[in-house]
Amino acid sequence: MVKINENFLKLPGSYLFSEVARRINAYTTAHPGTEIIKLSIGDVTRPLAPEVIKAMHGAVEEMGTVEGFHGYGPEQGYEFLREAVAQGDYTARGVDIRPEEIFISDGAKSDCGNIGDIFGVDNVVAVCDPVYPVYVDTNAMAGRAGEYQEELGRWNRLIYMPCVEANGFSPEPPKEKADLIYLCSPNNPTGAVISREKLKAWVDYANANGSVILYDSAYEAFITSEGVPHTIFEIEGARTCAIEFRSFSKTAGFTGSRCAYTVVPMELERGGAKLNALWNRRQCTKFNGVPYVIQRGAAAVYTPEGRAQIMSNIDYYRENARVIREGLTGAGLTCFGGVDAPYIWLKTPDGLGSWEFFDQVLAQANVATTPGAGFGPSGEGYIRLTAFGGAEATRTAVERVKGILR
Amino acid sequence: MVKINENFLKLPGSYLFSEVARRINAYTTAHPGTEIIKLSIGDVTRPLAPEVIKAMHGAVEEMGTVEGFHGYGPEQGYEFLREAVAQGDYTARGVDIRPEEIFISDGAKSDCGNIGDIFGVDNVVAVCDPVYPVYVDTNAMAGRAGEYQEELGRWNRLIYMPCVEANGFSPEPPKEKADLIYLCSPNNPTGAVISREKLKAWVDYANANGSVILYDSAYEAFITSEGVPHTIFEIEGARTCAIEFRSFSKTAGFTGSRCAYTVVPMELERGGAKLNALWNRRQCTKFNGVPYVIQRGAAAVYTPEGRAQIMSNIDYYRENARVIREGLTGAGLTCFGGVDAPYIWLKTPDGLGSWEFFDQVLAQANVATTPGAGFGPSGEGYIRLTAFGGAEATRTAVERVKGILR
Repeated sequence: MVKINENFLKLPGSYLFSEVARRINAYTTAHPGTEIIKLSIGDVTRPLAPEVIKAMHGAVEEMGTVEGFHGYGPEQGYEFLREAVAQGDYTARGVDIRPEEIFISDGAKSDCGNIGDIFGVDNVVAVCDPVYPVYVDTNAMAGRAGEYQEELGRWNRLIYMPCVEANGFSPEPPKEKADLIYLCSPNNPTGAVISREKLKAWVDYANANGSVILYDSAYEAFITSEGVPHTIFEIEGARTCAIEFRSFSKTAGFTGSRCAYTVVPMELERGGAKLNALWNRRQCTKFNGVPYVIQRGAAAVYTPEGRAQIMSNIDYYRENARVIREGLTGAGLTCFGGVDAPYIWLKTPDGLGSWEFFDQVLAQANVATTPGAGFGPSGEGYIRLTAFGGAEATRTAVERVKGILR
Repeated sequence: MVKINENFLKLPGSYLFSEVARRINAYTTAHPGTEIIKLSIGDVTRPLAPEVIKAMHGAVEEMGTVEGFHGYGPEQGYEFLREAVAQGDYTARGVDIRPEEIFISDGAKSDCGNIGDIFGVDNVVAVCDPVYPVYVDTNAMAGRAGEYQEELGRWNRLIYMPCVEANGFSPEPPKEKADLIYLCSPNNPTGAVISREKLKAWVDYANANGSVILYDSAYEAFITSEGVPHTIFEIEGARTCAIEFRSFSKTAGFTGSRCAYTVVPMELERGGAKLNALWNRRQCTKFNGVPYVIQRGAAAVYTPEGRAQIMSNIDYYRENARVIREGLTGAGLTCFGGVDAPYIWLKTPDGLGSWEFFDQVLAQANVATTPGAGFGPSGEGYIRLTAFGGAEATRTAVERVKGILR
C-alpha cells in the first residue's frame, strides 16, 4: 500500500489569499456595482519591454526553421544568458560571480522550494516573521518544520526571527543554531532591506556555524537607497555560506513568462560536498531548462535599450509606492518600506488588528489590502499594500483611504 | 552545521551519455574530418509547426500590450489548455478525463521526478530494466532506492522488472509488493508497448495492492498499431490507481519549449488523501505555471491545422524508424521497437556486448548509437537507435551500418 508524504497533511490551508478573496467577494456581492481597487496584488501589470518582445519574436521565428530550431537546451541555461547575468548583475557591480555559478530556472518560487532537495531533513531552518509562505510550506512538506501549532500559527521545529519596528524589520541572528537561514531583502512583505552591516553579521554567523544563507533578492531592482547591498555576494565571506535567488518576475515583468536564476558559488561546501555540484545534479535530474524563447527574452533585459525600458517600468511602480507612502504618511498613518521595495508595510491606526483594518478599508474605502497577520504572528497590526497597480487607480485608492481617516 | 542530503553522494556519475560523448570525441580526435551520424540523440530536430509559431507570435504580441499582458497564471495551467488537452487527448478517445485532473507543467522529466514529493520515503519502488534513468535517480535522491551496488549496477531497495525478448520487453507484475510502479509505454529505450491485456493486469495488481502506477506515455503520439492503449485511462480501474505523464516534447517538438502535463484522477486516494489535492498543493507551493506564450503554442497543437502539421512531423520520424528497422532487419540484424515508438532496440550480432558493438559501429560505420547496457543490466546485448535525425542522414547511417555487416 502506497504511503503518502504525511507532512502534506500537516499543512494548514493556504488561508491568507483565499480568505482575502472570500471577503472581497462577500463585500461585492452584498454591494453590487462597487468597484474595488486592489492594492493587495503581488503581480506586475506593465507589459513586457519592447526589446524583450522583439527578442521573443525573433526566437519564435527561429524555432519555426530547421536551421534556427532549438531542442533540449542545457539544464543550467544557455551560455548567452548565464554570461549576460554574470556580467550585468554581478561583474558590473564589481562582484565576482562566474557563469558556471548561475543556474537559470523557471522561477524563484521553484528554486526556493527545490533547493531543499540537496539538504538533509534534519537541518534546523530559520525564517523571518512575517514571512513569504513558500519558505515555510516547502520545508514543512520536506519534514523540516515539525508539527504545526494551530493556536500559535507556527511550526514547532522552525526558528522564527521576528521582524518588527524595534529592529527595523531586519532579522537578528538567533541564539539557537540555525542551519538553513532564509533571508529576503528587499523584503516581502515588509518592504524593509538588510543593511550592509547587518548582512555582514549574518555572513559571519553563517560561516562560524556552518550554516547556509538562502538569500532571496527577487526585488533587488527596486533598491534606490545608497549603500544597500544589491546582492549578498557584495559581502566578504558570502561565497562560502550563501546561495542567492533572483528573478526576472518583478525586475522585467516576467511573472507570466517564468525566468529566474540561482547563484551557487564554487567555494560553497558542506559535509565535504560542493553545493554547486549538488544543485547541478538536482537540476539535471529533475529539470530540463527554461524555454529558448523565454531565455532570449530575458537576455534582452541586459541590452542598453532593454535595461532602459525595464527601469522605466520599475520607475512607474516606484512612483506608485511613493504616492502610497507619502499620501498615507501625510494623512497621519505610519508606513514602512516602499523606498527600496514595491511593498508598503502600513501600521494599522488605533491599534486595530490586521483583519479589522482590512475590513474597514474594504468597506469604507473600497480598497483591497493584505492583512499582515497572514504572513505570521509578527505581522499582526500591519497591512501590506503593493505598488504594482495602475498609477491612476493607485492615486484614487490612496485618496479613498485618506477619506476614511478624516 | 548544515547537513547535505547524503543520498546525493550515493548517486553514480551519469555515466551513459557522457561516456558516449567521450568515445565519440576520442574517435573524431584520432580521425579528424570524419563525419559521425548520430542515431544516439533522443532530441527532436524538426521545427515547430506553423500553427504553433503563429500562436506563439500572437501571444508574444499580447504580452507587449497593457490589455493583453498576462502576469501570474494558474499554477495548474490555463483553462484553455487544460480543456484542449481533456478534449483532444481523452474525450476524443472516449476516455473521461476532466480539465481539473490535468496539471500543465514544464516537462515530463520534472513531473516524473517531482511526483515523489507527495509520497513517503518508505515506499517500495519498481522500475523496468532497462529504464529511463530519471525514475531511478530521483528516487535515489529521495532515499527510496537504498544503496547503490556498483558491481551489479543496481540499487538494493528498488525492484527491477526485466524487460527482455522472452516477455516482449513488457514488464510483469513482480512477486514482491511494489508500492510505486513506473511504467513507460511506448518505451524508452526499448520502443516496446504494453498491450491492453498486460496493462489491465497491471491495473488489477495496483488496485489489489494499493499501489500507484506512474504511467509515462510521453511517446504516445508514435503509436501506430491497432489496439495498443494510448492512455492508461482506457483501462477499467485505472482511475483508482494511476497517474499519467504526457509531454509536448516528442509530440510537437517542444523539447526546447518545455510543456507537458500530468493527469491525476479525482478518485485516486491513498491513506485517506486525494492525490489530486496533494499534487495540486505541491504544484501551487513549488511551481508557478508554464509561460503564457508556451501554453498558447501548446494549445495550437489541438487545432485541426496544428494537429495535421504535428502529425506530418511525426510521420517524418516514423519513416526514419521504418528505414532503420527494415534496413537493418533486411541486413540480418534483429530489431525491436520502431513501430509504435521513435526508438529501435537492436540486438547486437554475434553476442557482442553493447559497448563492443557501439565501438565497432562508431569506428567502422561512423555512426553513433547508445549502448543498451547503459539503461540497466537487461539492456546488455542491445543498442538503442533513434529516429529523430534528418531523413537523409538516417538513410546514410543505415547503409553504412549494413556495410560493416557484409
